[in-house]
Amino acid sequence: MQAEIITIGDEILIGQIVDTNSQFIGQELNKIGVSVYQITSIQDDRQHILNALKEAQKRVDIVIITGGLGPTKDDITKKTIAEYFNDHQLIEYPEVIAQIKEMFIKVNHPFNDVQRYQAQLPSKATLLKNVFGTAPGMWFYENETVFVSLPGVPYEMKGLITNEVLPKIQKQFKLPFIIHKTIMTYGQGESMIAERIEDFENNLPTYIKLAYLPSFGKVRLRLSAKGAHKEILEKELNDKVAEIYKLIPEIITGLDDDSSLEKRVGALLKRNNETISTAESLTGGQIAANLVSVAGSSDYYKGSFVTYSAETKINLLGVSAETIDKYSVVSKEVALEMARGVKAKLQTNYAIAVTGNAGPSADNTDKSVGIVYIAFISDTTELVQEFNFGQPREKVINRTVSKALEIANKEILKK
Amino acid sequence: MQAEIITIGDEILIGQIVDTNSQFIGQELNKIGVSVYQITSIQDDRQHILNALKEAQKRVDIVIITGGLGPTKDDITKKTIAEYFNDHQLIEYPEVIAQIKEMFIKVNHPFNDVQRYQAQLPSKATLLKNVFGTAPGMWFYENETVFVSLPGVPYEMKGLITNEVLPKIQKQFKLPFIIHKTIMTYGQGESMIAERIEDFENNLPTYIKLAYLPSFGKVRLRLSAKGAHKEILEKELNDKVAEIYKLIPEIITGLDDDSSLEKRVGALLKRNNETISTAESLTGGQIAANLVSVAGSSDYYKGSFVTYSAETKINLLGVSAETIDKYSVVSKEVALEMARGVKAKLQTNYAIAVTGNAGPSADNTDKSVGIVYIAFISDTTELVQEFNFGQPREKVINRTVSKALEIANKEILKK
Repeated sequence: MQAEIITIGDEILIGQIVDTNSQFIGQELNKIGVSVYQITSIQDDRQHILNALKEAQKRVDIVIITGGLGPTKDDITKKTIAEYFNDHQLIEYPEVIAQIKEMFIKVNHPFNDVQRYQAQLPSKATLLKNVFGTAPGMWFYENETVFVSLPGVPYEMKGLITNEVLPKIQKQFKLPFIIHKTIMTYGQGESMIAERIEDFENNLPTYIKLAYLPSFGKVRLRLSAKGAHKEILEKELNDKVAEIYKLIPEIITGLDDDSSLEKRVGALLKRNNETISTAESLTGGQIAANLVSVAGSSDYYKGSFVTYSAETKINLLGVSAETIDKYSVVSKEVALEMARGVKAKLQTNYAIAVTGNAGPSADNTDKSVGIVYIAFISDTTELVQEFNFGQPREKVINRTVSKALEIANKEILKK
Repeated sequence: MQAEIITIGDEILIGQIVDTNSQFIGQELNKIGVSVYQITSIQDDRQHILNALKEAQKRVDIVIITGGLGPTKDDITKKTIAEYFNDHQLIEYPEVIAQIKEMFIKVNHPFNDVQRYQAQLPSKATLLKNVFGTAPGMWFYENETVFVSLPGVPYEMKGLITNEVLPKIQKQFKLPFIIHKTIMTYGQGESMIAERIEDFENNLPTYIKLAYLPSFGKVRLRLSAKGAHKEILEKELNDKVAEIYKLIPEIITGLDDDSSLEKRVGALLKRNNETISTAESLTGGQIAANLVSVAGSSDYYKGSFVTYSAETKINLLGVSAETIDKYSVVSKEVALEMARGVKAKLQTNYAIAVTGNAGPSADNTDKSVGIVYIAFISDTTELVQEFNFGQPREKVINRTVSKALEIANKEILKK
């Protein structure tokens, strides 16, 4: 079963927003065994929408359209879909009118004809209830193809996908299973890994695919299998994972998202009943954001200081002005004092601190662009290391985050 | 001049990553007068890539392809593009070999045949130098269409777009100008605004488009004009903006990105030579992230406390345990004490603090899901307000961030 996602809206094409809706829809469809064959982002333009619908109908079984359902003139999706289905009769849904009125009373807005139009759907559409907004979703089934039209506002779209669209797709089609297993590796490039597992890769059956997903300092190896029998697929994928483990044992850090570094650090801390805190300069809170992205992190993550200026490092973390004068704000010594400061203030078992120069231009320090110091301290040990992450800025920041978590994981494991 | 962006990689289709590359490319092309007609994300599949290239060539003048240039077996873009152009001769570039060797020596990796293949390009390709990675970009020109193939790693792709692709496109084509002006409005829904500016909208010339971009609590109105004479377009757009200002004066907060709330708060603080700090609970550092996203923010933004637990609010910000016991951690009183705490610790002129329950499940407090308290204090005034942002979680967090900045802007303006 194949799907295509069509996102409508010039704001995506001119780069005003990032299309996060497609990611969500892709993930959710995958979970129920629907492959996304293509994602197509197009303009708010009648002819372009008609073409895209026609081409998608040739390619796939399910077409999910987002965007262009607002009440204003630039929102032409509903009108254009009606034209595509040659459906010129609008049906008004009293329950939608009632819902919009209720929403508008709460915020003291008058109800007008523009909103009334929101409650009117082409006669061939099945209403999909949008509890978070005024534009309902629509479901069409024509010539063996499902078309779903959803508003582009992310939380409205998400509610509709979860509560309305997925259950209806599962009811309509008999779906296969799609299973992914992702192996996380650190410290070796994808070409090195490819050489080491070449034979393994050449011998994979056609219904199992291997993908390399490199990012800063790590490569994820994703195995994907598709078929009718979930248990058989699970078993085969597990066998393949075991083979890879044998081939490159020393660079594998774990399996799937459960072994993202922040989750593993979290699991270790939970097991030990210990706590951690962070003090960040160049990473601007990204280490914190990674740690708190894990559900239940409030049990072990005690908080963060984001200290950009030398002044804040002094006032907030108790870094000494003499240390900064003597060694500069980008130094081993300052990283250590930052870690000691946050550990003492938040009374945690561990603390991470980072200071560095992400570039592109050199700071008013003597350190080159790309130099970063990462400190990790516990009740009994203090560790601080220098790294040169080069350029560009984005890479320096990302590698600092990933390296800091890697160090934390390694050190806490030693305990 | 129209372009299509084709992103190749199953990781986008299964929702493992968000496609941020297309946003960047869309923005950059727009700036030099190239419209992005469509963005197409497709699988790492030979036939799919061939079909996408053929269809794109029918639609546009410039096709930008990202992804699939890595050294591993799942990366088939180079081979497939060569097939598309019926080009079966590979040329090896010694300067690329030298560059890869230099990169590999630095990290102590041996150079092998997998990397050698990276330095070989189809004979019809023009080399685009990738200073940040091993996969060069490629430029093809066939039948009046430009094809550009770039690696998918974001910072490599960005370097290539900026340094190689844009200058070559500007040299190859005579480009029109595309200008956008975005008017920021607060406090009224898009359907209300649409009614108020209906006549204006009906009378717009065809080369000027109006789009409504609603998000939490605000609507941006984007006017876009395209033509050969930059000065004339600028003047016409300015006239149209002035007309909108006359029609809905009381809800407009400013123009373009310069008037994003965080930038306006920053500009006010800079003008007054004042400083601000933040203490955040449910928003997990997002108010901080917004404030520091503005270049030069270290002049006025002194830092952030992210305090998730009651315990950290007490230890870090000096909120009193009695206040939490008496009023619960989600309360006006705690928001105020958080603001007082961070203001005193960081010695700033202003402080923002937020506490609330973002849901989905109720905390161990007596407050319903969606209830948020926002405190804003200065040397002379203390303000704290209750809001009910409903559900889902994402909306509660986003509205809290946007409302907190709105309050800060309004209060600092009063000074």
